[in-house]
Amino acid sequence: MEPIHSVQWSPDGRALRIIDQRRLPSAFVELDLNTLDEIVDAIKTLAVRGAPAIGVAAAIGLVVTLEPFENEPTVLFRARLLAHATILNASRPTAVNLSWALARMIARAESNLVAHSPELLSILRAEATAILDEDRAMCDAIGRHGLQFVPGGARVLTHCNAGALATAGIGTALAPVYLAHAEGRAVSVFANETRPLLQGARLTAWELSRAGIPVTILTDAMAASLMRAGEIDVVLVGADRVAANGDTANKIGTYAVAVAAKHHGIPFYVCAPWSTIDRATPDGSAIPIEQRDSNEVRFAAGAAVSHANAHVRNPAFDVTPAELITAVITDKGVYRAPYSFTYEMRPRD
Amino acid sequence: MEPIHSVQWSPDGRALRIIDQRRLPSAFVELDLNTLDEIVDAIKTLAVRGAPAIGVAAAIGLVVTLEPFENEPTVLFRARLLAHATILNASRPTAVNLSWALARMIARAESNLVAHSPELLSILRAEATAILDEDRAMCDAIGRHGLQFVPGGARVLTHCNAGALATAGIGTALAPVYLAHAEGRAVSVFANETRPLLQGARLTAWELSRAGIPVTILTDAMAASLMRAGEIDVVLVGADRVAANGDTANKIGTYAVAVAAKHHGIPFYVCAPWSTIDRATPDGSAIPIEQRDSNEVRFAAGAAVSHANAHVRNPAFDVTPAELITAVITDKGVYRAPYSFTYEMRPRD
Repeated sequence: MEPIHSVQWSPDGRALRIIDQRRLPSAFVELDLNTLDEIVDAIKTLAVRGAPAIGVAAAIGLVVTLEPFENEPTVLFRARLLAHATILNASRPTAVNLSWALARMIARAESNLVAHSPELLSILRAEATAILDEDRAMCDAIGRHGLQFVPGGARVLTHCNAGALATAGIGTALAPVYLAHAEGRAVSVFANETRPLLQGARLTAWELSRAGIPVTILTDAMAASLMRAGEIDVVLVGADRVAANGDTANKIGTYAVAVAAKHHGIPFYVCAPWSTIDRATPDGSAIPIEQRDSNEVRFAAGAAVSHANAHVRNPAFDVTPAELITAVITDKGVYRAPYSFTYEMRPRD
Repeated sequence: MEPIHSVQWSPDGRALRIIDQRRLPSAFVELDLNTLDEIVDAIKTLAVRGAPAIGVAAAIGLVVTLEPFENEPTVLFRARLLAHATILNASRPTAVNLSWALARMIARAESNLVAHSPELLSILRAEATAILDEDRAMCDAIGRHGLQFVPGGARVLTHCNAGALATAGIGTALAPVYLAHAEGRAVSVFANETRPLLQGARLTAWELSRAGIPVTILTDAMAASLMRAGEIDVVLVGADRVAANGDTANKIGTYAVAVAAKHHGIPFYVCAPWSTIDRATPDGSAIPIEQRDSNEVRFAAGAAVSHANAHVRNPAFDVTPAELITAVITDKGVYRAPYSFTYEMRPRD
């Protein structure tokens, strides 16, 4: 089975190519985007989503939106770079990878102060490609570090989509699942459907089915009773931001899963690339939580489901405190409480 | 505001009149049903739903389906009575009120062995009316007993719909809310949308908004994070069956709410009429759990939401063990662990 590329360069390198995740699972459509409006819209409307994938999309997006201006005077081009990065950065607030990738692109430009526009564009293009390649390598590394927690026969619960569709590679939470399956371990997945936008039912079920991994969709409120019945061995979820103390922001509903896992003594692992760890944010209370349009809750798959006069809450994320997290599985290794996110640089790390 | 009558006699007494809850909130449609097929279908497809309302619907339904046969020989009429009751009883398995109401109707017939068909029909009609009237009175009594747990300013979380639409009266879990509101207490409700069939978003939000009570819809996975934020004071839910030890079957997802409430030290009350308490069932493990069609999960409000190859679970109910229940609020009073569901008959009880 051909791997999924949720985010990549178009073949001519002039556009950001994404799988339009708004259309899945009913249609598989790839879009080539090269204007700021298109890319910001794709991020805001979740055509491209998942913290790592958003970071990669922003880095490639920055390059392709700058490309038409490569002959501008360098001073103006550098100002435009900052302007485009600012606009891209404002597209979603919670995932730290977005600002991490853009900050890295800006830093790269600032470390090449003598470069003129065309050369700077080449440097930025190489940096975006490095971010893309590193994201794929990070997914593989998370998979290797997490493989020990997915023994043969493991029944894994996941929430939202932290798979290939959420990254440039094989995912974060699903990376250990893909590697376990590749090794021939009989692993199966319960996917919370993840209201309001149903990323679990639409995306996780799609990509796991495509890979031949058995997947069962649950409504979000079912998982606790399956835990009580002894049907779930381990929980693997992704992260949009991990604070310095281990508190983790992830898709709304993750916290409820963590509470239920704790109650049942089931291990609960957060899987996240190093770029998701935000050591500048001391704890979960400092993580900004995106509030999304109430119509996402009022409608399900386009159909109205609620009384128009009722109020609606729609936070996109919640924060799971570190004490409910068994460990954070990163590409640099497995971290446990009390969290101290540091690592030794090693060859080939 | 005119009270809601989710289940009642039609004005001529020849049909069961229900609000078609499949159509809410987009349309308010009342249906007059008088054949077995119609009534069984209405119960199976949740046109009429809620454990107490199903019991009342079955009692009235039994009478209206027998009416065309009132001139049959009494022996045949009595056999038909048992046959109709058996068919109605098979329409849904979990709510004990259904079999409770039908058993009561049969017992009434059996205690009038000399009655001929027309007279027996009159006796059954009076019994069904008594069940209807008692259901309304039970709702009021649950409201009075539960009012102490809904002080002014209380922010109540509920799951599914255990309101006027689920009973012949003002509901079970929502009865204390309606009485608190009627007393002028500033009470507000968070309604879990309750996937897959969205009874919270469609029904609870509709009936509370109609009554002028502030209601906010949550996706099912949000409540735990609202509890953590200190936004929920008390949980009130209904029940489809309460076992002798207090274990309670209710809409799928109730258990997850109970686990989260326990984790946050928030009181969790089950509100149920006496007819929901099944002293013949020792504990929750003996309660049959209805498994419903997977398409309820695959679709939301009629729109496909999931990948066709994925498996789906769709238990209609889960069991919350007694240790997570602060108290069971019945029309006979408030019961706490260790549960012993007995009461003294008192005048006007």
